[in-house]
Amino acid sequence: MSKVFMLAPDSFKESMTAKEVCEAMEIGIKRAIPDAECIHVPMADGGEGTVQSLVDATGGTIIRKEVTGPIGTPVIAHYGILGDGKTGVIEMASASGIHHVTKETKNPLITTTFGTGELIKDCIERGITDIILGIGGSATNDGGAGMARALGYKFLDKEGKELPLGGGSLLALDTVDTTDVHPQLKHIHILVASDVTNPLCGEKGASVVFGPQKGATPEMVALLDESLRHYSNVIKQQLGADILDLPGAGAAGGLGGGLLAFTNATMKKGIEIVIEYTGLKEKLQNVDYCFTGEGGIDFQTKFGKTPYGVAKAAKSVNSDIKVIALAGSVGQDVEALYDEGFDAIFGIVPKAADLDTLLAEGKENVARTSENISRLLK
Amino acid sequence: MSKVFMLAPDSFKESMTAKEVCEAMEIGIKRAIPDAECIHVPMADGGEGTVQSLVDATGGTIIRKEVTGPIGTPVIAHYGILGDGKTGVIEMASASGIHHVTKETKNPLITTTFGTGELIKDCIERGITDIILGIGGSATNDGGAGMARALGYKFLDKEGKELPLGGGSLLALDTVDTTDVHPQLKHIHILVASDVTNPLCGEKGASVVFGPQKGATPEMVALLDESLRHYSNVIKQQLGADILDLPGAGAAGGLGGGLLAFTNATMKKGIEIVIEYTGLKEKLQNVDYCFTGEGGIDFQTKFGKTPYGVAKAAKSVNSDIKVIALAGSVGQDVEALYDEGFDAIFGIVPKAADLDTLLAEGKENVARTSENISRLLK
Repeated sequence: MSKVFMLAPDSFKESMTAKEVCEAMEIGIKRAIPDAECIHVPMADGGEGTVQSLVDATGGTIIRKEVTGPIGTPVIAHYGILGDGKTGVIEMASASGIHHVTKETKNPLITTTFGTGELIKDCIERGITDIILGIGGSATNDGGAGMARALGYKFLDKEGKELPLGGGSLLALDTVDTTDVHPQLKHIHILVASDVTNPLCGEKGASVVFGPQKGATPEMVALLDESLRHYSNVIKQQLGADILDLPGAGAAGGLGGGLLAFTNATMKKGIEIVIEYTGLKEKLQNVDYCFTGEGGIDFQTKFGKTPYGVAKAAKSVNSDIKVIALAGSVGQDVEALYDEGFDAIFGIVPKAADLDTLLAEGKENVARTSENISRLLK
Repeated sequence: MSKVFMLAPDSFKESMTAKEVCEAMEIGIKRAIPDAECIHVPMADGGEGTVQSLVDATGGTIIRKEVTGPIGTPVIAHYGILGDGKTGVIEMASASGIHHVTKETKNPLITTTFGTGELIKDCIERGITDIILGIGGSATNDGGAGMARALGYKFLDKEGKELPLGGGSLLALDTVDTTDVHPQLKHIHILVASDVTNPLCGEKGASVVFGPQKGATPEMVALLDESLRHYSNVIKQQLGADILDLPGAGAAGGLGGGLLAFTNATMKKGIEIVIEYTGLKEKLQNVDYCFTGEGGIDFQTKFGKTPYGVAKAAKSVNSDIKVIALAGSVGQDVEALYDEGFDAIFGIVPKAADLDTLLAEGKENVARTSENISRLLK
């Protein structure tokens, strides 16, 4: 009977999408074992590449849309609709990510999640009922106020004037006006993919921990932290939602908290969401070998990265499934993964080479390594 | 029953001796399979590293000796005495190699194999009866005349005066005087390790094919080729040995021919000699897995390189032995080796890196790769 191979890698960033990794793995495996049965499940962990992988895994589609970027100028963002036709998948970074700002323009006092809200609105208007929202890589520190504003919330000062976009103005917040909130919003469920458990404010809060990498000076960090604290107080008093100390409220500059306050949202680890929506565990029935991988694998992989989730899922379905990981970079203390369900981990690099060369040759290197592993499994 | 692993790699040049590769492989294998039985057979192919590997494989010793270098100045050379106490192993390059000359001093008109002859003489005087002589990497084009002179042959011109050392003077050769040849020389057998089958002279001869890389201009090539032709004619007339068209006579600037003419020598492929003297085939009895490897592996490996010889030997002993090769550089068209006895070939490089870093980290990279391969074999 032919052997069944599950191919469930993450993308190899800047080299291959997860789907392309699957294809390269299959080419290599079939060179060694022509009658191998290969099941492709392009994976992700809720971060960059999650939209592409879930669309690829479910036969969905990608939607492109011009929205307001983090500094107010338009950007072309994209999101996905899964094969079921009713689930949207959004990466906040596509609309409001750090890659949309430069060293000169990054300024968390003014950057906004407005564009992310526009993507949610676009989903709603297409009849989507469930949204998976990955919230890594943000350029923002606005507590999700911009996102909420795009969905109809109004953030007013004492004089009833709308606040400017950005986290720096929230200290002046007096009233959250819900009059014009999109009527469909309450019927939509948003599953927030976040591995970050930081609270909204304080020493481990959004502004202190993540503000500096978004361009905040120490003075800005202090102002932003105070602003978010005031913002959560207003939300608590006027909407009844207490997000200040919720784990994950501090994710993506407080977008985590904003989603929990303003929408019908729940938060879950990215890899768990991806495993659920790809039907990975069901597809692991009858599998003999599970190939996974990522651009880089090291001891940190066990903190919720894709190959870790895949390995755990495979072993939970059947401890006899051999889990084999491939990586462009095999990093420090990778042997820590052997106790986490990984049977073997192989680098794909053939020789001394610079990164650009390796990124360009990724497919052949995945294929060759998969071939040689499979030749040992014959 | 515990699995038996044969570890038979070549050296990884500039990184690890073959013995060190064996040790790193065992460390990795035993991390995965603590009760694995590992048989170390450090290998070589007759080229650089052959002395060290055969000494390591047989429990022999290394002898260091000051001899005449290729341009007449002294160099510290070394050779080995195998564990049997009666077999010497010499790399001609140690005394007369291209690494002893610079861009400025390389000149095949004057470079000499005299130092190689001194090493042979030293072996003889220690009671050695069999010499393995690897003849790659020479700086010379003297037909082995220097080597012979160190052993007592005299090369005289018409006036009975000794010729200067080097290939450029051989055109003036009139008489080979054997009066003072070392009396023990005829009792010594020299097994010449050479993969080169070029004849002494002509288009495929020593001077035309290998002269330029030793510093010969086109005019020098013509003179050297004519000199070696005259030299072989004198040898034929006076000693009865016809080396002109012997395959391999052109190896190492004609040292191959000189050995065949002046000593009791036979020529064989380097890897075959090493397989014989290490007892590789006998040690392959009862082996389950044979690990081999070399710094670089590509399609050219099948032209007599160590991993090729090891793979062929393993499969000839038992076609069920899985042959697994490791390499610092997995090169072009390596899949050509799958038909030659190789079950799988893995690179050891963990990530994008420059060569110096990889050379320094070779042991851990061999160990980690061996470990992960072994985890698949459990």
